[in-house]
Formats: sequence, structure tokens, C-alpha cells
Amino acid sequence: MQTAPSTNLSDPEFVKGILAGDRAVLSKVITLAESTREDDLRRAEGLLKTLLPHTGKSVRIGITGVPGVGKSTFIEQFGGLLTKSGKRVAVLAIDPSSQKSKGSILGDKTRMEHLSRNPHVFIRPTPTGLALGGVSYHTRETILFCEAAGFDVILIETVGVGQSETIVRGMVDFFLLLLLAGAGDELQGMKKGIVEMADGIVINKADGENLKATNQARADALSALHLQAASSSGWIPRVLTMSAIENRGIEETWHMIEEFQRHTSSSGYFQHYRNEQKKKWLDESIDQKFRELLHAPALRKQKEKLMEEVMNDSMLPAEAANEFWKQLTIFLRGK
Amino acid sequence: MQTAPSTNLSDPEFVKGILAGDRAVLSKVITLAESTREDDLRRAEGLLKTLLPHTGKSVRIGITGVPGVGKSTFIEQFGGLLTKSGKRVAVLAIDPSSQKSKGSILGDKTRMEHLSRNPHVFIRPTPTGLALGGVSYHTRETILFCEAAGFDVILIETVGVGQSETIVRGMVDFFLLLLLAGAGDELQGMKKGIVEMADGIVINKADGENLKATNQARADALSALHLQAASSSGWIPRVLTMSAIENRGIEETWHMIEEFQRHTSSSGYFQHYRNEQKKKWLDESIDQKFRELLHAPALRKQKEKLMEEVMNDSMLPAEAANEFWKQLTIFLRGK
Repeated sequence: MQTAPSTNLSDPEFVKGILAGDRAVLSKVITLAESTREDDLRRAEGLLKTLLPHTGKSVRIGITGVPGVGKSTFIEQFGGLLTKSGKRVAVLAIDPSSQKSKGSILGDKTRMEHLSRNPHVFIRPTPTGLALGGVSYHTRETILFCEAAGFDVILIETVGVGQSETIVRGMVDFFLLLLLAGAGDELQGMKKGIVEMADGIVINKADGENLKATNQARADALSALHLQAASSSGWIPRVLTMSAIENRGIEETWHMIEEFQRHTSSSGYFQHYRNEQKKKWLDESIDQKFRELLHAPALRKQKEKLMEEVMNDSMLPAEAANEFWKQLTIFLRGK
Repeated sequence: MQTAPSTNLSDPEFVKGILAGDRAVLSKVITLAESTREDDLRRAEGLLKTLLPHTGKSVRIGITGVPGVGKSTFIEQFGGLLTKSGKRVAVLAIDPSSQKSKGSILGDKTRMEHLSRNPHVFIRPTPTGLALGGVSYHTRETILFCEAAGFDVILIETVGVGQSETIVRGMVDFFLLLLLAGAGDELQGMKKGIVEMADGIVINKADGENLKATNQARADALSALHLQAASSSGWIPRVLTMSAIENRGIEETWHMIEEFQRHTSSSGYFQHYRNEQKKKWLDESIDQKFRELLHAPALRKQKEKLMEEVMNDSMLPAEAANEFWKQLTIFLRGK
């Protein structure tokens, strides 16, 4: 049984709306790309292909940090700064509340009060009910749609649990880690692998009584960064400090990212990294198809039968796997 | 070009030799199962299928710990104790030297001097040049061959780097973690996830000047274990201490494992866990076939072409993935 199509816009209306930077149309196309209906997905793909020549011109920034580090406030201030200098900003945000409540956009509206009312900002909460800390399989497509809609900076927020960071790192140009000027063991709370992925670290709440702790956090961060091999581009990750009260650090963060862009663009690494990410995207898409096949009812049934054979020792797993692939071939042929 | 078959034994000779507990024949069949030749692999599979009714009667024990914790000495003493009580012991060992030197069996002979001369012991170094800390894709088959050859206890040693532990945990009944009675931060050196997988922890070198440190290590281990949810079987992981000098801990370790066996056998969990592992083995075999397909030259070539299309934006990754699966279907049909 087919449900009603998810939208009543025509393809030309979609393309026109997106290229005009219409946030409502942008929102609709992302919903289309996140649909569970096969025809919606095919349509979103077609639209994306049409829009492809208009993508790629933003700087894509991943922002991570443990809950409580001040990601929302940072994004609120950072986004505000960027729009003041004439930039349009898209925020692909993780709404922590929505992970439990199965998602209301209200969470982000409250979290980023000013940004959510800023006409130059597009905030999109990632779909809820997803694994991997809210990062969607479709986040890459969402980035491209936002770029086609003329957004200059794309901020992708993750919750700092580990797996989602690796995924986000694979789709952004610059990966920013927020730390708290608390105890020296802040770094240990953050998985070592995440620190190693950072192009820049910002130590938040570096003011007042925290100043001593800031120095410790800074030293820890620097030593963690020094332990890692320099990136192939030659970019050396920086550690900045930030204070919302003292109005310090936000502008410096943007300058750091601009410098990163200059540095990696002139050496060709900016594009090189993006190409590598594209290659990985294809690999992941091929894998994804495999996962989907494994969930096809006909094949699941076949697998259950083979599982029984394995359980009562009348088949070896390797044998059963061979047989399964034969069934899979027949299934694919029939499609 | 085919090389010569890896063995000149006939199938009946193999079966007879293995069932008689002949270690030389056992060694040969494992080599067959680890071969890169398709016909060797098919033959090993056939032999394993014949031997399947004779498998499953051992207790499979995974042993892990960071380098220097004393794994070799532990296995030497533990294996010695078991053979004294009439048991036959197979050791699937990781030879640390072989990881660099591309593998001489001499390493294990030196590491476990007594065991290697014990006629009731079979020592098999894991093939070198493999990823995942020396755990082989064929280790599960090796376990079954050893069981068919009448070995009562199978010890599988891993190097404590993380990924290999998860794999070994998925093929043993009891997972033993060795810690050192050193500083309290021993536990932190060991990845938290590994501690959580343990059915038992043994703190090594718990004697002399180390006694105070032992108490700390013990407290740390217990608190790490308490933080985790009880296993579904109701087995509560134990923490023991051990001293080679004071000849203490080895027997206690075996008693712990015997009690684990009694506990989980009476509740049915021993078999339940094995069944779950078998299911996972099938899943992994299906995945493995997919990885092998991706490496088939014809398909690699196809993928490279599609990659080019993706790189110059004339195809979306999702589209290219669809196309790749079409090619894969054609390839499978032709096989």
C-alpha cells in the first residue's frame, strides 16, 4: 500500500525554490531525501543530480564536544558572527531532547533562540530514532542541498559519543572539538581518537576562576595533538580558548578556519580531502545496499532456513554462506 | 597457475589421523584450512563437515592482557596443571615476535618451553601477516579441528589491542583477562570494553612488594566489573590474584572456570552462548563473501569506472552504488 506522495511541489518548483535559497523548499527536499518511500528517494536523487553543479562552495564544519561543553551557545554565537559578515549559515543540529522524545524541532528553537529567528540561517534537526548519535545516512545529501540553496557555511553538530564523530569527520572540511576549561581529565573523558581527528580545539568557559584550569586543559590538548602525526596537508591543529562572558574566542575560531582553508586550498589538499570523502561515500553506498538486501524479507527467510541447518550441524557456516549468496544472486536477478 | 596441492594425505587418512589425536595430521589440516588455494579450502571444509559430530566437547578459553602481563608464563603453568590432571590442551597462540618477523614457530617454542615439549599439548601459532592482532578468520575452524582431535581445553591467546579481543570473545566460552599488580591505572591502560567482556580477571605477580598494588588493582577491577550489568546467565565475574613465586592462583583459576561451566551448563546458558556464536559465525561468513567479491578484479575495475563518474559529478554515489550492484549481479550469475 502506497501512502500519499510526501510533497506536492513539482521538480522545477523544487529546483527553482532551492536555487533561490527558499528555506521552506529546502526543508521539503531534505524531508524527501529522508523518506522511507522508494519513489521519494529516487525523486530526491534526481533533484540532487540536477543541483550538483551548484554544490561544493561552502565550508563544511563539524563541531563536537561532550554534553554540557556549550555547543549550542557556541553555535549560536558563531552563527551570529558569520551572518553579521553577510554569510548564510546552515546548522545540521542534534537536538538532544529529540533523541528521547522522538523529535520535536522545538528543542533546537529553544537551544538556539537567536539563530532560529535569523533569516540567513537554516536550522535542521537530524532525524530522530537514528543510531550513531543522530548522524543520518542522508546528512551528506543534506549538505549538498544546503549548498545548492546558497549556504556559505554548514555546521554539523555531533554529540561526542565516538562513532558519530568518525562519520561526521568523513563529511566535513574542518573538524572542531570543544573542550571545557574544567579539570585536566577533560581530555580523557573525550575519546582519544576524537582528539586526533580535530583540526582545531576550542577550550570553552576560559574565564574567571577557570583560568588556571584553562592552562591545564590547553597543555593537555596540545600534548595530545603533539603525540599525533602531522596531517599530510601540513596543517597543524590549533588550540584556542574562548569566553562567552569576555566575548573572546568566537572571531578567533573563524580566523583559524579561514586560515585552514587558505592553507589547504593553496596546497590542493582542500579538494584532495573532499575527493577522498567522495570515494568513501561510494564505498559506503555500496555497503548500504548490501545491508538493505540482507533485510529483504525473502532473503531473511532464506537465511533463517540456513541458520537452522548450521545450528543442527548439517551445514558449516562457510557452506551456508555460499548457499546464501546463491539465493541472493537469484533474488537480484529477479529484481 | 596452480601450485602443487598442499598435502599428500588422503581424506580418510586425515580423518583417521585427526580422530586419533595425531598432532602432525592436525597441524596439516589447519594449514589446509589456512591456505589461499580454493581447492584446499573446499577440502578442509569437507573434512571439517565429516568431523563435526566429534567437535564441541572442549572448554574454549580466551586469554588476554597487555604485553608484559605474563601471558606466556600463565599459559605455561596453566597448561602444565591441566595436563597433570590428564587433560589434553591446545594453545592457539600469538607469537609476538612473529608479528614483526613474519613468523617463526620458534618464538612460541621458546616462550612456552615446557608446554612445547609436552606430548599432551598442541601449540599452534596463529598465521602471521594477518590483521586483528593475529586472530585468523580460520581460528573458529582451528578450534573445531582441535576438538575433533580430542583436546579437552582450548586456550586462545590475544595481544590485548582491542579488536582481536572482541573477535576472540565471540568464539570462546570463558574470557579471561590478565592484569598486572602494578599501578592502579593498569585498568585504564586496558580498554574499558575489554574489562567488560571478561568472565574472570586474574591479577598477576601479586606477591612481595606488589601486595599493596595488588589490593588497588583488585579494587579497581572489582569496581570496573560492578559498573557493568550482570550477564544474562547470572554469572558474576570474579577477580583472583596470582603469584608464580608463591605458586598461587593457577589452580584457583581453573576452579573458577569449572564453576563457570557448572553454573552456565545447568542453566543452559553454556549452550545458548555457543548457539549465539554460531549464528554470528554465519553472519560473518556472509559478510566475508561480500568482501571477497569486492576484491574480484572484474568488479574492482567496474568500481573504478563508477568512481570516476562520481568524481566528475556525472553520477551520484547512490546511483553509482545501484549500478555497481547491477554489475555484481551479472558477475555472480556468470560464476
